[in-house]
Amino acid sequence: MNFNEEYEKRIKEIENILRRFLPAGGGYQKVIMEAMEYSLMAGGKRLRPMLMLESFRLFGGKGRIIEPFAAAIEMIHTYSLVHDDLPAMDDDDYRRGRKTTHVVYGEDMGILAGDALLNYAFETACKTFELEPDASARIGQAMKIMAEKSGIYGMIGGQVVDVRESGQKISGDMLDFIYRLKTGALIEASVMAGAVLAGATADETAQMEQIARKVGLAFQIQDDILDVTGTAETLGKPVHSDEKNEKTTYVTWKGLEESGNEVARLTEEAIGLLRDTGRDSDYLEALFKWLIYREK
Amino acid sequence: MNFNEEYEKRIKEIENILRRFLPAGGGYQKVIMEAMEYSLMAGGKRLRPMLMLESFRLFGGKGRIIEPFAAAIEMIHTYSLVHDDLPAMDDDDYRRGRKTTHVVYGEDMGILAGDALLNYAFETACKTFELEPDASARIGQAMKIMAEKSGIYGMIGGQVVDVRESGQKISGDMLDFIYRLKTGALIEASVMAGAVLAGATADETAQMEQIARKVGLAFQIQDDILDVTGTAETLGKPVHSDEKNEKTTYVTWKGLEESGNEVARLTEEAIGLLRDTGRDSDYLEALFKWLIYREK
Repeated sequence: MNFNEEYEKRIKEIENILRRFLPAGGGYQKVIMEAMEYSLMAGGKRLRPMLMLESFRLFGGKGRIIEPFAAAIEMIHTYSLVHDDLPAMDDDDYRRGRKTTHVVYGEDMGILAGDALLNYAFETACKTFELEPDASARIGQAMKIMAEKSGIYGMIGGQVVDVRESGQKISGDMLDFIYRLKTGALIEASVMAGAVLAGATADETAQMEQIARKVGLAFQIQDDILDVTGTAETLGKPVHSDEKNEKTTYVTWKGLEESGNEVARLTEEAIGLLRDTGRDSDYLEALFKWLIYREK
Repeated sequence: MNFNEEYEKRIKEIENILRRFLPAGGGYQKVIMEAMEYSLMAGGKRLRPMLMLESFRLFGGKGRIIEPFAAAIEMIHTYSLVHDDLPAMDDDDYRRGRKTTHVVYGEDMGILAGDALLNYAFETACKTFELEPDASARIGQAMKIMAEKSGIYGMIGGQVVDVRESGQKISGDMLDFIYRLKTGALIEASVMAGAVLAGATADETAQMEQIARKVGLAFQIQDDILDVTGTAETLGKPVHSDEKNEKTTYVTWKGLEESGNEVARLTEEAIGLLRDTGRDSDYLEALFKWLIYREK
Protein backbone atom coordinates (compact mmCIF):
# COMPACT_ATOMS: atom_id res chain seq x y z
CA MET A 1 0.00 0.00 0.00
CA ASN A 2 1.27 3.44 -0.93
CA PHE A 3 0.17 5.36 2.16
CA ASN A 4 0.53 8.85 0.75
CA GLU A 5 -1.53 7.96 -2.29
CA GLU A 6 -4.24 6.34 -0.18
CA TYR A 7 -4.20 9.28 2.24
CA GLU A 8 -4.58 11.85 -0.53
CA LYS A 9 -7.43 9.84 -2.03
CA ARG A 10 -9.24 9.95 1.28
CA ILE A 11 -8.56 13.63 1.83
CA LYS A 12 -10.14 14.34 -1.54
CA GLU A 13 -13.13 12.17 -0.69
CA ILE A 14 -13.62 14.04 2.58
CA GLU A 15 -13.24 17.48 1.03
CA ASN A 16 -15.94 16.49 -1.45
CA ILE A 17 -18.25 15.34 1.31
CA LEU A 18 -17.69 18.55 3.25
CA ARG A 19 -18.35 20.66 0.18
CA ARG A 20 -21.57 18.77 -0.51
CA PHE A 21 -22.84 19.42 3.00
CA LEU A 22 -21.89 23.09 3.18
CA PRO A 23 -24.91 25.28 3.90
CA ALA A 24 -26.45 26.59 0.72
CA GLY A 25 -28.41 29.67 -0.18
CA GLY A 26 -27.97 33.38 0.09
CA GLY A 27 -30.46 35.52 1.93
CA TYR A 28 -29.87 38.25 4.45
CA GLN A 29 -27.77 35.88 6.57
CA LYS A 30 -25.32 35.01 3.77
CA VAL A 31 -22.31 36.27 5.73
CA ILE A 32 -22.62 33.46 8.29
CA MET A 33 -22.51 30.83 5.56
CA GLU A 34 -19.35 32.45 4.21
CA ALA A 35 -17.77 32.43 7.67
CA MET A 36 -18.73 28.75 8.13
CA GLU A 37 -17.22 27.84 4.77
CA TYR A 38 -14.11 29.90 5.47
CA SER A 39 -13.41 28.01 8.69
CA LEU A 40 -14.54 24.56 7.53
CA MET A 41 -12.67 24.57 4.22
CA ALA A 42 -9.35 25.76 5.68
CA GLY A 43 -7.73 22.38 5.14
CA GLY A 44 -6.29 20.39 8.00
CA LYS A 45 -5.70 16.69 8.47
CA ARG A 46 -9.41 15.77 8.45
CA LEU A 47 -8.47 13.15 10.98
CA ARG A 48 -11.90 12.80 12.59
CA PRO A 49 -13.99 12.21 9.46
CA MET A 50 -11.20 9.96 8.14
CA LEU A 51 -11.28 7.81 11.26
CA MET A 52 -15.06 7.68 11.10
CA LEU A 53 -15.12 6.56 7.47
CA GLU A 54 -12.43 3.94 8.09
CA SER A 55 -14.21 2.60 11.15
CA PHE A 56 -17.44 2.40 9.14
CA ARG A 57 -15.63 0.42 6.44
CA LEU A 58 -13.86 -1.77 8.97
CA PHE A 59 -17.23 -3.11 10.08
CA GLY A 60 -18.56 -3.54 6.56
CA GLY A 61 -20.68 -0.37 6.47
CA LYS A 62 -22.41 0.32 3.16
CA GLY A 63 -24.34 3.24 1.74
CA ARG A 64 -24.17 7.00 2.20
CA ILE A 65 -25.54 7.17 5.72
CA ILE A 66 -22.00 7.81 6.98
CA GLU A 67 -21.38 10.95 4.93
CA PRO A 68 -23.53 13.45 6.83
CA PHE A 69 -21.99 12.19 10.07
CA ALA A 70 -18.46 12.52 8.67
CA ALA A 71 -19.23 16.13 7.75
CA ALA A 72 -20.86 16.71 11.15
CA ILE A 73 -17.87 15.58 13.20
CA GLU A 74 -15.58 17.90 11.25
CA MET A 75 -18.04 20.78 11.79
CA ILE A 76 -17.92 20.14 15.53
CA HIS A 77 -14.13 20.04 15.50
CA THR A 78 -14.05 23.26 13.47
CA TYR A 79 -16.49 25.15 15.70
CA SER A 80 -14.34 24.27 18.71
CA LEU A 81 -11.30 25.80 16.97
CA VAL A 82 -13.22 28.94 15.95
CA HIS A 83 -14.35 29.57 19.53
CA ASP A 84 -10.96 28.55 20.93
CA ASP A 85 -9.32 31.28 18.84
CA LEU A 86 -11.61 34.07 20.12
CA PRO A 87 -10.04 37.02 21.99
CA ALA A 88 -11.69 35.95 25.26
CA MET A 89 -10.17 32.47 24.85
CA ASP A 90 -6.72 31.82 23.30
CA ASP A 91 -6.83 35.05 21.27
CA ASP A 92 -5.16 33.60 18.18
CA ASP A 93 -4.97 35.58 14.93
CA TYR A 94 -3.67 32.76 12.76
CA ARG A 95 -4.48 29.09 12.27
CA ARG A 96 -3.21 26.82 9.52
CA GLY A 97 -1.40 29.83 8.09
CA ARG A 98 -4.60 31.82 7.59
CA LYS A 99 -6.29 34.55 9.57
CA THR A 100 -8.73 33.15 12.11
CA THR A 101 -12.46 33.47 11.53
CA HIS A 102 -13.10 36.28 14.02
CA VAL A 103 -10.20 38.30 12.59
CA VAL A 104 -11.76 38.14 9.12
CA TYR A 105 -15.46 38.40 10.03
CA GLY A 106 -15.42 40.21 13.38
CA GLU A 107 -15.74 38.87 16.88
CA ASP A 108 -19.55 38.77 16.84
CA MET A 109 -19.58 36.69 13.66
CA GLY A 110 -16.81 34.49 15.10
CA ILE A 111 -19.07 33.61 18.02
CA LEU A 112 -22.08 33.09 15.75
CA ALA A 113 -20.13 31.09 13.14
CA GLY A 114 -19.04 28.70 15.90
CA ASP A 115 -22.60 28.40 17.16
CA ALA A 116 -23.80 27.89 13.61
CA LEU A 117 -21.27 25.11 12.91
CA LEU A 118 -22.17 23.25 16.08
CA ASN A 119 -25.87 23.51 15.35
CA TYR A 120 -25.37 22.67 11.68
CA ALA A 121 -23.44 19.55 12.64
CA PHE A 122 -26.58 18.13 14.24
CA GLU A 123 -28.75 19.51 11.45
CA THR A 124 -26.53 17.70 8.94
CA ALA A 125 -26.45 14.43 10.86
CA CYS A 126 -30.26 14.62 11.11
CA LYS A 127 -30.47 14.38 7.31
CA THR A 128 -29.72 10.66 7.67
CA PHE A 129 -33.14 10.05 9.24
CA GLU A 130 -34.72 10.77 5.86
CA LEU A 131 -31.91 9.08 3.94
CA GLU A 132 -32.48 5.76 5.72
CA PRO A 133 -35.63 5.78 7.86
CA ASP A 134 -35.19 2.09 8.69
CA ALA A 135 -31.84 2.85 10.32
CA SER A 136 -33.34 5.41 12.74
CA ALA A 137 -32.38 3.47 15.87
CA ARG A 138 -28.75 3.13 14.78
CA ILE A 139 -28.65 6.78 13.73
CA GLY A 140 -30.02 7.80 17.11
CA GLN A 141 -27.34 5.78 18.85
CA ALA A 142 -24.57 7.38 16.76
CA MET A 143 -26.00 10.83 17.39
CA LYS A 144 -26.09 10.18 21.13
CA ILE A 145 -22.43 9.19 21.09
CA MET A 146 -21.50 12.26 19.07
CA ALA A 147 -23.42 14.59 21.40
CA GLU A 148 -22.00 13.07 24.58
CA LYS A 149 -18.40 13.05 23.41
CA SER A 150 -18.66 16.67 22.22
CA GLY A 151 -20.19 18.03 25.39
CA ILE A 152 -19.35 18.75 29.01
CA TYR A 153 -18.40 15.13 29.68
CA GLY A 154 -16.25 15.21 26.56
CA MET A 155 -14.63 17.90 24.45
CA ILE A 156 -16.19 20.97 26.09
CA GLY A 157 -15.38 19.58 29.53
CA GLY A 158 -11.72 19.29 28.56
CA GLN A 159 -11.73 22.75 27.05
CA VAL A 160 -13.20 24.25 30.23
CA VAL A 161 -10.42 22.83 32.38
CA ASP A 162 -7.75 23.76 29.83
CA VAL A 163 -8.96 27.38 29.74
CA ARG A 164 -9.35 27.60 33.50
CA GLU A 165 -5.94 26.18 34.30
CA SER A 166 -3.94 27.78 31.50
CA GLY A 167 -0.75 29.42 32.71
CA GLN A 168 -0.79 27.41 35.93
CA LYS A 169 1.22 24.39 36.94
CA ILE A 170 -1.15 21.44 36.81
CA SER A 171 -0.91 17.82 37.90
CA GLY A 172 -0.32 14.90 35.56
CA ASP A 173 -3.77 13.63 36.46
CA MET A 174 -5.37 16.87 35.32
CA LEU A 175 -3.27 16.96 32.17
CA ASP A 176 -4.44 13.44 31.29
CA PHE A 177 -8.02 14.55 31.96
CA ILE A 178 -7.69 17.53 29.61
CA TYR A 179 -6.11 15.46 26.83
CA ARG A 180 -8.58 12.62 27.14
CA LEU A 181 -11.54 14.99 26.94
CA LYS A 182 -10.41 17.93 24.82
CA THR A 183 -8.77 15.89 22.08
CA GLY A 184 -9.54 12.26 22.81
CA ALA A 185 -13.32 12.41 23.15
CA LEU A 186 -14.00 13.56 19.60
CA ILE A 187 -11.61 10.96 18.18
CA GLU A 188 -13.45 8.33 20.23
CA ALA A 189 -16.77 9.65 18.90
CA SER A 190 -15.48 9.37 15.33
CA VAL A 191 -14.59 5.67 15.42
CA MET A 192 -17.54 4.75 17.65
CA ALA A 193 -20.15 6.48 15.47
CA GLY A 194 -18.59 4.92 12.38
CA ALA A 195 -18.79 1.48 13.96
CA VAL A 196 -22.36 1.91 15.20
CA LEU A 197 -23.59 3.20 11.84
CA ALA A 198 -22.04 0.14 10.18
CA GLY A 199 -23.92 -2.11 12.59
CA ALA A 200 -21.04 -3.10 14.89
CA THR A 201 -21.88 -4.76 18.21
CA ALA A 202 -21.59 -3.00 21.57
CA ASP A 203 -18.38 -4.94 22.28
CA GLU A 204 -16.86 -3.98 18.97
CA THR A 205 -17.79 -0.35 19.54
CA ALA A 206 -16.23 -0.42 23.00
CA GLN A 207 -13.05 -1.92 21.51
CA MET A 208 -12.89 0.93 19.00
CA GLU A 209 -13.32 3.40 21.86
CA GLN A 210 -10.25 1.91 23.58
CA ILE A 211 -8.23 2.14 20.39
CA ALA A 212 -9.27 5.75 19.85
CA ARG A 213 -8.43 6.67 23.43
CA LYS A 214 -4.83 5.58 22.88
CA VAL A 215 -4.57 7.20 19.47
CA GLY A 216 -6.09 10.43 20.76
CA LEU A 217 -3.62 10.68 23.62
CA ALA A 218 -0.68 9.85 21.34
CA PHE A 219 -1.91 12.51 18.91
CA GLN A 220 -2.07 15.19 21.58
CA ILE A 221 1.35 14.33 23.03
CA GLN A 222 2.78 14.51 19.51
CA ASP A 223 1.29 18.02 19.28
CA ASP A 224 3.21 18.96 22.44
CA ILE A 225 6.38 17.55 20.92
CA LEU A 226 5.89 19.44 17.65
CA ASP A 227 5.39 22.70 19.55
CA VAL A 228 9.00 22.25 20.73
CA THR A 229 10.64 20.57 17.72
CA GLY A 230 8.58 21.91 14.80
CA THR A 231 8.87 25.05 12.71
CA ALA A 232 6.24 27.74 12.30
CA GLU A 233 6.43 27.29 8.55
CA THR A 234 5.55 23.60 8.60
CA LEU A 235 2.96 23.87 11.37
CA GLY A 236 1.27 27.01 10.03
CA LYS A 237 1.14 28.39 13.57
CA PRO A 238 3.64 29.85 16.05
CA VAL A 239 5.93 27.34 17.80
CA HIS A 240 7.07 27.38 21.43
CA SER A 241 3.64 28.78 22.29
CA ASP A 242 3.33 26.36 25.22
CA GLU A 243 6.57 27.58 26.74
CA LYS A 244 5.53 31.20 26.14
CA ASN A 245 2.18 30.58 27.82
CA GLU A 246 3.87 28.61 30.63
CA LYS A 247 1.64 25.69 29.81
CA THR A 248 2.09 22.32 31.45
CA THR A 249 2.40 19.77 28.64
CA TYR A 250 3.60 16.20 28.35
CA VAL A 251 6.97 17.60 27.31
CA THR A 252 7.31 19.88 30.36
CA TRP A 253 5.97 17.05 32.52
CA LYS A 254 7.94 14.04 31.26
CA GLY A 255 10.57 15.49 28.96
CA LEU A 256 10.94 15.20 25.22
CA GLU A 257 12.36 11.68 25.08
CA GLU A 258 9.89 10.08 27.45
CA SER A 259 7.02 11.84 25.62
CA GLY A 260 8.25 10.38 22.34
CA ASN A 261 8.39 6.92 23.91
CA GLU A 262 4.84 7.35 25.19
CA VAL A 263 3.58 8.21 21.71
CA ALA A 264 5.27 5.11 20.27
CA ARG A 265 3.97 2.87 23.06
CA LEU A 266 0.36 4.10 22.80
CA THR A 267 0.41 3.70 19.04
CA GLU A 268 1.74 0.15 19.25
CA GLU A 269 -0.99 -0.72 21.75
CA ALA A 270 -3.66 0.79 19.53
CA ILE A 271 -2.40 -1.21 16.56
CA GLY A 272 -2.40 -4.38 18.64
CA LEU A 273 -6.04 -3.84 19.64
CA LEU A 274 -6.91 -3.03 16.05
CA ARG A 275 -5.41 -6.33 14.86
CA ASP A 276 -7.43 -8.16 17.52
CA THR A 277 -10.58 -7.21 15.62
CA GLY A 278 -9.45 -9.62 12.92
CA ARG A 279 -10.56 -7.21 10.23
CA ASP A 280 -8.75 -5.63 7.31
CA SER A 281 -7.14 -2.65 9.01
CA ASP A 282 -4.09 -1.98 6.85
CA TYR A 283 -4.89 1.63 6.14
CA LEU A 284 -5.85 2.46 9.73
CA GLU A 285 -2.60 0.93 10.96
CA ALA A 286 -0.60 2.96 8.48
CA LEU A 287 -2.53 6.07 9.49
CA PHE A 288 -1.76 5.51 13.18
CA LYS A 289 1.93 5.12 12.37
CA TRP A 290 1.92 8.20 10.19
CA LEU A 291 0.46 10.21 13.04
CA ILE A 292 3.65 9.57 15.05
CA TYR A 293 6.00 10.65 12.30
CA ARG A 294 3.97 13.64 11.14
CA GLU A 295 5.62 17.02 11.16
CA LYS A 296 2.42 19.06 11.44
CA MET B 1 -60.47 27.77 33.83
CA ASN B 2 -58.38 29.83 36.19
CA PHE B 3 -55.54 30.78 33.86
CA ASN B 4 -53.08 31.96 36.50
CA GLU B 5 -53.50 28.76 38.47
CA GLU B 6 -53.05 26.61 35.37
CA TYR B 7 -50.08 28.69 34.27
CA GLU B 8 -48.34 28.37 37.64
CA LYS B 9 -48.96 24.64 37.63
CA ARG B 10 -47.25 24.36 34.26
CA ILE B 11 -44.34 26.59 35.25
CA LYS B 12 -43.74 24.29 38.22
CA GLU B 13 -43.92 21.23 35.99
CA ILE B 14 -41.37 22.74 33.59
CA GLU B 15 -39.00 23.86 36.36
CA ASN B 16 -39.08 20.28 37.63
CA ILE B 17 -38.30 18.89 34.20
CA LEU B 18 -35.44 21.35 33.75
CA ARG B 19 -34.03 20.50 37.15
CA ARG B 20 -34.19 16.78 36.35
CA PHE B 21 -32.24 17.23 33.15
CA LEU B 22 -29.57 19.54 34.55
CA PRO B 23 -26.11 18.12 34.02
CA ALA B 24 -24.95 16.16 37.04
CA GLY B 25 -21.59 15.38 38.55
CA GLY B 26 -18.62 17.32 39.74
CA GLY B 27 -15.19 16.73 38.31
CA TYR B 28 -12.62 19.22 37.17
CA GLN B 29 -15.16 20.84 34.84
CA LYS B 30 -17.72 21.54 37.60
CA VAL B 31 -17.71 25.29 36.94
CA ILE B 32 -19.34 24.85 33.54
CA MET B 33 -22.22 22.93 35.09
CA GLU B 34 -22.70 25.73 37.59
CA ALA B 35 -22.73 28.32 34.80
CA MET B 36 -25.26 26.25 32.84
CA GLU B 37 -27.50 25.92 35.88
CA TYR B 38 -27.15 29.62 36.68
CA SER B 39 -28.36 30.64 33.23
CA LEU B 40 -30.96 27.91 32.77
CA MET B 41 -32.61 28.28 36.18
CA ALA B 42 -32.91 32.08 36.05
CA GLY B 43 -36.66 31.92 35.65
CA GLY B 44 -38.43 33.41 32.66
CA LYS B 45 -41.73 32.62 31.01
CA ARG B 46 -40.68 29.13 29.86
CA LEU B 47 -42.81 29.82 26.82
CA ARG B 48 -41.06 27.38 24.48
CA PRO B 49 -41.23 24.22 26.64
CA MET B 50 -44.77 25.21 27.63
CA LEU B 51 -45.86 25.43 23.99
CA MET B 52 -44.16 22.14 23.26
CA LEU B 53 -45.87 20.33 26.12
CA GLU B 54 -49.26 21.79 25.19
CA SER B 55 -48.85 20.88 21.54
CA PHE B 56 -47.88 17.34 22.56
CA ARG B 57 -51.03 17.09 24.69
CA LEU B 58 -53.20 18.66 21.99
CA PHE B 59 -52.43 15.68 19.76
CA GLY B 60 -52.91 13.12 22.49
CA GLY B 61 -49.24 12.55 23.25
CA LYS B 62 -48.53 10.15 26.11
CA GLY B 63 -45.44 9.15 28.04
CA ARG B 64 -42.25 10.92 29.03
CA ILE B 65 -40.67 11.14 25.62
CA ILE B 66 -41.57 14.84 25.50
CA GLU B 67 -39.68 15.85 28.63
CA PRO B 68 -36.09 15.70 27.35
CA PHE B 69 -37.20 17.69 24.30
CA ALA B 70 -38.95 20.30 26.47
CA ALA B 71 -35.72 20.72 28.45
CA ALA B 72 -33.69 20.81 25.23
CA ILE B 73 -35.65 23.64 23.63
CA GLU B 74 -35.24 25.79 26.74
CA MET B 75 -31.50 25.03 26.76
CA ILE B 76 -31.27 26.23 23.17
CA HIS B 77 -33.22 29.39 24.00
CA THR B 78 -30.99 29.97 27.03
CA TYR B 79 -27.70 29.47 25.17
CA SER B 80 -28.83 32.05 22.60
CA LEU B 81 -29.41 34.57 25.40
CA VAL B 82 -26.05 33.81 27.06
CA HIS B 83 -24.18 34.41 23.79
CA ASP B 84 -26.39 37.38 22.91
CA ASP B 85 -25.36 39.09 26.15
CA LEU B 86 -21.60 38.72 25.51
CA PRO B 87 -19.46 41.87 25.24
CA ALA B 88 -18.84 41.27 21.53
CA MET B 89 -22.61 41.01 20.98
CA ASP B 90 -25.17 43.11 22.90
CA ASP B 91 -22.85 43.55 25.88
CA ASP B 92 -25.58 43.28 28.53
CA ASP B 93 -24.70 43.02 32.22
CA TYR B 94 -28.20 42.21 33.45
CA ARG B 95 -30.99 39.90 32.38
CA ARG B 96 -34.15 39.06 34.30
CA GLY B 97 -32.82 41.27 37.10
CA ARG B 98 -29.69 39.16 37.58
CA LYS B 99 -26.13 39.55 36.39
CA THR B 100 -25.57 37.86 33.05
CA THR B 101 -23.59 34.62 32.86
CA HIS B 102 -20.36 36.10 31.50
CA VAL B 103 -20.39 38.81 34.18
CA VAL B 104 -20.53 36.17 36.90
CA TYR B 105 -18.30 33.48 35.36
CA GLY B 106 -16.06 35.45 33.01
CA GLU B 107 -16.25 35.93 29.28
CA ASP B 108 -14.48 32.66 28.43
CA MET B 109 -16.92 30.65 30.55
CA GLY B 110 -19.80 32.66 29.05
CA ILE B 111 -18.80 31.46 25.59
CA LEU B 112 -18.27 27.88 26.79
CA ALA B 113 -21.49 27.79 28.83
CA GLY B 114 -23.42 28.79 25.72
CA ASP B 115 -21.67 26.12 23.67
CA ALA B 116 -22.30 23.62 26.44
CA LEU B 117 -26.02 24.41 26.62
CA LEU B 118 -26.46 24.08 22.87
CA ASN B 119 -24.59 20.78 22.80
CA TYR B 120 -26.35 19.53 25.92
CA ALA B 121 -29.72 20.29 24.35
CA PHE B 122 -29.03 17.67 21.69
CA GLU B 123 -27.42 15.36 24.23
CA THR B 124 -30.58 15.61 26.33
CA ALA B 125 -32.96 15.10 23.41
CA CYS B 126 -30.89 12.02 22.43
CA LYS B 127 -31.83 10.38 25.74
CA THR B 128 -35.24 9.69 24.20
CA PHE B 129 -33.76 7.13 21.80
CA GLU B 130 -33.12 4.84 24.77
CA LEU B 131 -36.35 5.86 26.51
CA GLU B 132 -38.49 4.73 23.57
CA PRO B 133 -36.47 2.83 20.95
CA ASP B 134 -39.61 2.07 18.94
CA ALA B 135 -40.22 5.78 18.48
CA SER B 136 -36.79 6.40 16.89
CA ALA B 137 -38.19 7.60 13.56
CA ARG B 138 -40.49 10.14 15.23
CA ILE B 139 -37.70 11.27 17.53
CA GLY B 140 -35.42 11.73 14.54
CA GLN B 141 -38.06 13.86 12.83
CA ALA B 142 -38.52 16.05 15.92
CA MET B 143 -34.76 16.43 16.29
CA LYS B 144 -34.43 17.46 12.66
CA ILE B 145 -37.07 20.15 13.14
CA MET B 146 -35.39 21.41 16.30
CA ALA B 147 -31.96 21.56 14.62
CA GLU B 148 -33.24 23.31 11.50
CA LYS B 149 -35.27 25.92 13.36
CA SER B 150 -32.36 26.69 15.71
CA GLY B 151 -29.77 27.09 12.99
CA ILE B 152 -28.76 29.39 10.17
CA TYR B 153 -32.14 29.03 8.44
CA GLY B 154 -33.82 29.74 11.77
CA MET B 155 -32.80 31.39 15.03
CA ILE B 156 -29.08 31.87 14.32
CA GLY B 157 -29.91 33.27 10.87
CA GLY B 158 -32.14 35.90 12.46
CA GLN B 159 -29.56 36.69 15.08
CA VAL B 160 -26.86 37.19 12.43
CA VAL B 161 -28.95 39.78 10.59
CA ASP B 162 -30.03 41.45 13.83
CA VAL B 163 -26.41 41.83 14.96
CA ARG B 164 -25.22 42.95 11.54
CA GLU B 165 -27.91 45.57 11.07
CA SER B 166 -28.14 46.87 14.62
CA GLY B 167 -28.06 50.63 14.80
CA GLN B 168 -29.03 50.99 11.16
CA LYS B 169 -32.34 51.87 9.61
CA ILE B 170 -33.68 48.66 8.12
CA SER B 171 -36.60 47.83 5.86
CA GLY B 172 -39.88 46.33 7.05
CA ASP B 173 -39.06 43.25 5.01
CA MET B 174 -35.80 42.76 6.86
CA LEU B 175 -37.45 43.42 10.21
CA ASP B 176 -40.04 40.73 9.47
CA PHE B 177 -37.22 38.39 8.47
CA ILE B 178 -35.36 38.98 11.75
CA TYR B 179 -38.50 38.48 13.87
CA ARG B 180 -39.62 35.40 12.00
CA LEU B 181 -36.21 33.77 12.38
CA LYS B 182 -34.76 35.10 15.62
CA THR B 183 -37.89 34.68 17.74
CA GLY B 184 -40.41 32.87 15.56
CA ALA B 185 -38.37 29.87 14.48
CA LEU B 186 -37.84 28.46 17.96
CA ILE B 187 -41.52 28.92 18.82
CA GLU B 188 -42.38 27.08 15.61
CA ALA B 189 -39.94 24.31 16.55
CA SER B 190 -41.60 23.98 19.95
CA VAL B 191 -45.12 23.32 18.72
CA MET B 192 -43.98 21.28 15.73
CA ALA B 193 -41.73 18.97 17.74
CA GLY B 194 -44.49 18.54 20.32
CA ALA B 195 -46.94 17.59 17.58
CA VAL B 196 -44.53 15.20 15.82
CA LEU B 197 -43.61 13.45 19.06
CA ALA B 198 -47.32 12.95 19.79
CA GLY B 199 -47.76 11.35 16.38
CA ALA B 200 -49.50 14.23 14.58
CA THR B 201 -49.73 14.08 10.78
CA ALA B 202 -47.65 16.24 8.43
CA ASP B 203 -50.70 18.45 7.79
CA GLU B 204 -51.38 18.90 11.47
CA THR B 205 -47.72 19.74 12.09
CA ALA B 206 -47.78 22.30 9.28
CA GLN B 207 -50.92 23.84 10.77
CA MET B 208 -49.16 24.19 14.11
CA GLU B 209 -46.24 25.85 12.34
CA GLN B 210 -48.61 28.48 10.93
CA ILE B 211 -50.11 29.11 14.34
CA ALA B 212 -46.68 29.45 15.91
CA ARG B 213 -45.53 31.83 13.20
CA LYS B 214 -48.33 34.23 14.10
CA VAL B 215 -47.85 33.85 17.84
CA GLY B 216 -44.10 34.32 17.51
CA LEU B 217 -44.47 37.53 15.56
CA ALA B 218 -47.10 38.86 17.98
CA PHE B 219 -44.82 37.98 20.87
CA GLN B 220 -41.88 39.87 19.39
CA ILE B 221 -43.95 42.96 18.53
CA GLN B 222 -45.27 42.95 22.09
CA ASP B 223 -41.64 42.99 23.25
CA ASP B 224 -41.08 46.12 21.18
CA ILE B 225 -44.16 47.70 22.73
CA LEU B 226 -43.04 46.82 26.27
CA ASP B 227 -39.64 48.38 25.63
CA VAL B 228 -41.52 51.68 25.20
CA THR B 229 -44.41 51.30 27.66
CA GLY B 230 -42.92 49.03 30.34
CA THR B 231 -40.87 49.77 33.44
CA ALA B 232 -37.39 48.44 34.19
CA GLU B 233 -38.71 47.06 37.47
CA THR B 234 -41.37 44.88 35.89
CA LEU B 235 -39.26 43.81 32.91
CA GLY B 236 -36.10 43.12 34.90
CA LYS B 237 -34.08 44.85 32.17
CA PRO B 238 -33.53 48.43 31.00
CA VAL B 239 -36.37 50.03 29.00
CA HIS B 240 -36.09 52.32 25.99
CA SER B 241 -33.04 50.30 24.97
CA ASP B 242 -34.28 50.12 21.37
CA GLU B 243 -34.49 53.91 21.14
CA LYS B 244 -31.08 54.25 22.79
CA ASN B 245 -29.58 51.77 20.31
CA GLU B 246 -31.44 53.45 17.42
CA LYS B 247 -32.98 50.10 16.61
CA THR B 248 -35.68 49.77 14.01
CA THR B 249 -38.62 48.02 15.68
CA TYR B 250 -42.29 47.52 14.90
CA VAL B 251 -42.99 50.55 17.10
CA THR B 252 -40.56 52.83 15.26
CA TRP B 253 -41.82 51.39 11.97
CA LYS B 254 -45.59 51.40 12.44
CA GLY B 255 -46.15 53.33 15.63
CA LEU B 256 -47.43 52.17 19.00
CA GLU B 257 -51.13 51.93 18.14
CA GLU B 258 -50.73 50.08 14.87
CA SER B 259 -48.25 47.70 16.53
CA GLY B 260 -50.81 46.96 19.24
CA ASN B 261 -53.45 46.28 16.58
CA GLU B 262 -51.06 43.93 14.82
CA VAL B 263 -50.49 41.94 18.00
CA ALA B 264 -54.25 41.61 18.52
CA ARG B 265 -54.89 40.65 14.89
CA LEU B 266 -52.14 38.00 14.79
CA THR B 267 -53.34 36.52 18.05
CA GLU B 268 -56.93 36.30 16.85
CA GLU B 269 -55.79 34.58 13.67
CA ALA B 270 -53.68 32.11 15.63
CA ILE B 271 -56.64 31.29 17.87
CA GLY B 272 -58.85 30.82 14.80
CA LEU B 273 -56.41 28.31 13.30
CA LEU B 274 -56.09 26.58 16.65
CA ARG B 275 -59.87 26.12 16.86
CA ASP B 276 -59.82 24.66 13.35
CA THR B 277 -57.90 21.69 14.72
CA GLY B 278 -61.10 20.71 16.52
CA ARG B 279 -59.10 19.73 19.59
CA ASP B 280 -59.30 20.81 23.19
CA SER B 281 -57.22 23.97 23.11
CA ASP B 282 -58.62 26.02 26.00
CA TYR B 283 -55.34 26.49 27.78
CA LEU B 284 -53.37 27.33 24.62
CA GLU B 285 -55.98 29.93 23.67
CA ALA B 286 -55.80 31.52 27.10
CA LEU B 287 -52.01 31.48 26.89
CA PHE B 288 -52.04 33.25 23.52
CA LYS B 289 -54.35 35.92 24.93
CA TRP B 290 -52.26 36.33 28.03
CA LEU B 291 -49.21 36.92 25.87
CA ILE B 292 -50.86 40.10 24.54
CA TYR B 293 -51.69 41.50 27.93
CA ARG B 294 -48.45 40.54 29.60
CA GLU B 295 -46.39 43.29 31.20
CA LYS B 296 -43.05 41.51 30.97
